[in-house]
Amino acid sequence: MTQSIALPAHASYQAALQRQNSLTKPAGSLGVLETVACRFAAWQGQTIPAALTPAITVFAGDHGVTAEGVSAYPSIVTGEMVKNFAAGGAAICVLARAIAARLEVVDVGVLGQLPDLPIVHAKVAAGTANLAVEAAMSTTEVEAALEVGRTAARRAIEQGANLLIAGDMGIGNTTPSAALICRLANLEVDLIVGRGTGIDDAGLANKRRVVAQALQRLQGQQLSGTQVLAELGGLEIAAMAGFYLEGAAQGVPSLVDGFIASAAALAARAIDPAVAAWLLASHRSEETGHRLALEALGLEPLVELGMRLGEGSGAATCVPLLQLAIKLHAEMATFAQAGVTEKD
Amino acid sequence: MTQSIALPAHASYQAALQRQNSLTKPAGSLGVLETVACRFAAWQGQTIPAALTPAITVFAGDHGVTAEGVSAYPSIVTGEMVKNFAAGGAAICVLARAIAARLEVVDVGVLGQLPDLPIVHAKVAAGTANLAVEAAMSTTEVEAALEVGRTAARRAIEQGANLLIAGDMGIGNTTPSAALICRLANLEVDLIVGRGTGIDDAGLANKRRVVAQALQRLQGQQLSGTQVLAELGGLEIAAMAGFYLEGAAQGVPSLVDGFIASAAALAARAIDPAVAAWLLASHRSEETGHRLALEALGLEPLVELGMRLGEGSGAATCVPLLQLAIKLHAEMATFAQAGVTEKD
Repeated sequence: MTQSIALPAHASYQAALQRQNSLTKPAGSLGVLETVACRFAAWQGQTIPAALTPAITVFAGDHGVTAEGVSAYPSIVTGEMVKNFAAGGAAICVLARAIAARLEVVDVGVLGQLPDLPIVHAKVAAGTANLAVEAAMSTTEVEAALEVGRTAARRAIEQGANLLIAGDMGIGNTTPSAALICRLANLEVDLIVGRGTGIDDAGLANKRRVVAQALQRLQGQQLSGTQVLAELGGLEIAAMAGFYLEGAAQGVPSLVDGFIASAAALAARAIDPAVAAWLLASHRSEETGHRLALEALGLEPLVELGMRLGEGSGAATCVPLLQLAIKLHAEMATFAQAGVTEKD
Repeated sequence: MTQSIALPAHASYQAALQRQNSLTKPAGSLGVLETVACRFAAWQGQTIPAALTPAITVFAGDHGVTAEGVSAYPSIVTGEMVKNFAAGGAAICVLARAIAARLEVVDVGVLGQLPDLPIVHAKVAAGTANLAVEAAMSTTEVEAALEVGRTAARRAIEQGANLLIAGDMGIGNTTPSAALICRLANLEVDLIVGRGTGIDDAGLANKRRVVAQALQRLQGQQLSGTQVLAELGGLEIAAMAGFYLEGAAQGVPSLVDGFIASAAALAARAIDPAVAAWLLASHRSEETGHRLALEALGLEPLVELGMRLGEGSGAATCVPLLQLAIKLHAEMATFAQAGVTEKD
């Protein structure tokens, strides 16, 4: 069914590194911009990678766990924000326009009906069940949501994307994300659960209780990645995992956004560890626990801007840095070309 | 002679902050992008700041202190790199094209003659004297170099720049920069002197000795900002200080690059403390001591990318982030416009 995931081209990485060391600058002086250029060389299989054609897909879904009072916003906001995406007024819309990215919005599990919006209608279910007390989804639903994400990645790649960004919209989704991160990376609740869109101290204590309770349900059980997603995940999170997996299978890297995206990436890795080599971290979010989630993924964030919005916004913000890294790599003169004396 | 420096418009900052809190996102969730948008509102004196029209001026000069063996590259590279700037092959050229910035190169003190290059010929002297043993420049030379920078800022602003970036090119210039930072921020030599373009351990020990010796010469002396520049500075560093001062006087902010730029900013502040309110930090450089230099300036860097190239490259790399911050501020829908429910 699923294509296997290849390794990025190591020879292209090495050739790109050699080129970096011939450019008119002290070796290493462009810092992570050098590494980034070499990684895109490996992903694209060419010494000088092409400019990026990014595609952003925002997956939207609702969460039964909001019944536990874990979010500062009511679930109705998920659908309202999808309307805002469709109208072009949300942060990710502004960013997509600014970085010339294709933007697609997918309803994979919003509670309400959104019949007239120019989005992809792929609702697997009207929200999840309350993960505090039962499995959020059936494994059949998880498989369907994974496939929604895979299909979205194929669509983006067919239309020319060579960089994928998955964004999320789902009131309450820092709770399933925290639960996934705790379970998949074996981390403690208090280190991972944060304030999401802005709950107070009492809300935070309650959210910790909810996540601990959900984890407790599963203690001692051996579960596959798909089963963990079913127990603790969300429809949009499963779709994001499928999106990453399909991108990797097609040889297209994904730029991972923040907390929810990192939970999805951990879930994708639990399904197929080979996906990890096709992931690049963008920002470190303000959300408690994102630092540890990135460490568990073995990813180093490019920037730390204090963002905690979701939607793919942190990843989109980083795209210009990646474009600059590739341009520097492609366009700088070498010492030989410029007639500049090399280091003593 | 010099125009006085006004304060940024606090009322515009407040109005911008109010707008930020009305946009369809949890308040504060865009992190420093929100603060940046509000700061440009204050600098431009309008609630929604205009998109940035950046201008980069790279000031080039040589340093007598290279006689002490403080750099991994010979002084001849300064002029060679100026030729590379003129030919469009250096990192800053690629970045300037990518961010659509005006780029100007100014010879304020290169050792060799560069007669035929399409640059600004404003050589105050053919390099500085060896600051380890005597004043690097006379105060007359410093005044002339400051004026070269001021004139360059006026030129950029007349041509429409609303954001200034000063870049540096000068083999050996991390040594005067370290000396300036130690003296102006009262910091210890070992915390500030670093490897520059890449000296080894013996080179580092030697460079520390040189800076300590220069500081020792001046111990107990009360010196003005201009006098400190004369003793420990460089021609391009003085020009950068003048550039910042004139930008501030004209109401145009500067985006501060790395280690050398921060030394120039400290010198500018020693000449007129009011300049500080018109400075924005871009990146934290890998060069030892830049963290402390930024702290002394009261500046928080936007990013930390492991860069240590100079030329204004770190600042130029950050410009797209600033543009995104302003676009988000200008183009996002408010809760009222989008019909999105606000926080409980």
